Formats: sequence, structure tokens, C-alpha cells
Amino acid sequence: MSYLGVGVSPGTVPVYHSTNLKLLDKRIKIAELVLRFMILGLGVVAVVLIGTDSQVKVFFSFKKEAKFTDVKALVFLVVANGLAAGYSLIQGLRCVVSLVRGSVLFNKPLAWAIFSADQIMAYVTVSAVAGAGQSAVKVCNMYEKFCNQVGEGVASAVVACISMVLLSCISSFTLFRLYGPNKTKSAAW
Amino acid sequence: MSYLGVGVSPGTVPVYHSTNLKLLDKRIKIAELVLRFMILGLGVVAVVLIGTDSQVKVFFSFKKEAKFTDVKALVFLVVANGLAAGYSLIQGLRCVVSLVRGSVLFNKPLAWAIFSADQIMAYVTVSAVAGAGQSAVKVCNMYEKFCNQVGEGVASAVVACISMVLLSCISSFTLFRLYGPNKTKSAAW
Repeated sequence: MSYLGVGVSPGTVPVYHSTNLKLLDKRIKIAELVLRFMILGLGVVAVVLIGTDSQVKVFFSFKKEAKFTDVKALVFLVVANGLAAGYSLIQGLRCVVSLVRGSVLFNKPLAWAIFSADQIMAYVTVSAVAGAGQSAVKVCNMYEKFCNQVGEGVASAVVACISMVLLSCISSFTLFRLYGPNKTKSAAW
Repeated sequence: MSYLGVGVSPGTVPVYHSTNLKLLDKRIKIAELVLRFMILGLGVVAVVLIGTDSQVKVFFSFKKEAKFTDVKALVFLVVANGLAAGYSLIQGLRCVVSLVRGSVLFNKPLAWAIFSADQIMAYVTVSAVAGAGQSAVKVCNMYEKFCNQVGEGVASAVVACISMVLLSCISSFTLFRLYGPNKTKSAAW
């Protein structure tokens, strides 16, 4: 009877749920960590590739140097990726700490802060890539070599911005699941 | 006894929660409805203002007409706002139906579809506004009258895109609260 009691006791059910939840949380945290450090790496690559790119061309007797500062959209892209890289470093370190401690984020104000910051960064990086895509075409007609390196930088920024969008989905999930419909406090919102 | 029984019976507790939840859901739905029809209106205004704008200027003996099709970013803005307006009409009608029926969205595939579509529309409208903001400056140096009307269109598009971002937050909330940590099915995800 005691043997059967352990197996089917209702008391074991919450333990099972909590283990399942921890597994899900660990997976989400690892995905978040990987994405944050991907953005850090890709952001730095984009900044270096675009920031160091230049090409000198001679038009008749004039020397003209192409630099990213000539195109506003590229300046915006470099700034946005620099910001994203710095932001991801800070958030990545927070992820490492929370993974090592094994803590689960149930703190609503912190979840709201991370959610808001991730949303802003996602919109900034997407806008920067969209703007650069539109403007880069003009530069490419005149400066082929310059254009190639900018293209590699933009490609890196595109992957970084997709990662940032995925991250903003993860932080939405982390925040809004705290408002599950079967929680009294949450329903009162 | 029967009088007291009705008042404090544990059976009334879930009813109380569910009423609270319904109130929250109704508020969210009304906010969603208002935002959807705001985007519809503002999107149409932006398309009409930018799409019908033109200015003829005489340079020496050449006549040059400025139209939105001269600036790629404005074409993108018009297309994005047209799409946002059409999309918001369809989603707005869905909101009206669900408000009239009083149904609550607990259907995960539908919530995922609305969430994804809202996310895409939010990123598209934000990118379009960011691109137009960068490009419009050039036009304004040459065509003042044209620039004024474009400015009004862009202002309308900015409010529409902010509304779209808020909507994407609402649909994230509607989706991810279905994955509350104290639901067995959700935790297994």
C-alpha cells in the first residue's frame, strides 16, 4: 500500500511539473545565451567590416575616397550594431549569472525591463538594416571593392538583427507567461 | 445556511476569477480594436497624402516634377502603410466578431498566427518610417511644398507604426500568457 501510495500520490504531481518547467527554462536560457553572444560577435564583425572599409577612386584628376561616413544609413548601421553588441554583452553576462545560479525569472519589473530593452534593440537593428539595404545600392554602382566589404558587414548585421528579433520573442514569452490566465493575481493585472 | 452557503462556497471562487479574466480580456480586445482601426485610418491618410503629393519646379528651362515615386523610401512607406491598412481592416473585423461573440482567444495556433503577422507588420512599418525619415531630408532641400505634405504623411505613418508596435505587444501578451508556468500542458511545451 505504501509502495502504491508513493507512485500515485497527488503530492508528486507538482514536483513533476516543476521539473518540466525547469527543463524548459534551462533550454530557453541557453537559447537566449547563445543568441546574445551571437549578436555580440556579429555586431562587432559588422562594425569592423563597415567601419574600416574604404576605397580611393580617381575621377579625372580628383581623388575621391569612399568611407562609410559618406552614407548616413551606414553610419546608423554601425552605431546600431555597436549598441547591440554592447547591450548583448551586458545581457549575456546576466544570462550566465542566472544560468550558474539556476534562478528562474519570476520578477515582473525585471522581465518588463528586459522585454522593453529587447523590443527597442530589435526595432533599431531591423530599421538600421532596412535603411542600409536601401542606401547601399547607390554606393555599389560607383565603388565595387568598397561595396563588397560593406555587403559582408550588412550580411553580418542581418543575421544579428534576426537573432535580436528572436530574442525579443523569447523575452516576450518570459514576461507574458507570468500573466497566465489561471493565476488570480495576474488576472487582476 | 443556504444563504451563507452561496456566499462563501468554494465553488464561487473560480467564477470570480473568470469574471476578472473576462474583464481584462474585454479591455484588451477593446484596446486592440481601437488600435487596429487607428492604423487603418492613419495608414490610408499616409498613403493618400504621400501618394497624391507632387510639385513642379522649373530649373532654367527644364520642368521637373517631384513625385513620391522618385524616392524609393517613400514608395516603401506607401506600400507598407497600404499593407498595414488592409491587414488592420481584416484583423479589425475579426476583433469585432470576437467582441460581439464574447469569445476568449485560447486557440494557440490562431494566437501564434496573429502574433507572427503582427510582428512582421510592426517591423515592416517601423523600417518604412525609419527609411523615409532618412530619405525625406534630401527632398526637402529642393521641394518645400512637396516636403510639407510628405511630412504630414510621414507623421501619420509614425503614429500608425507606434500603434502597430503596441498591437504586437498585445498579441505577444495574448499568445504567451497561454504558456503560464502553472499549467501542466504549457510547461511541457
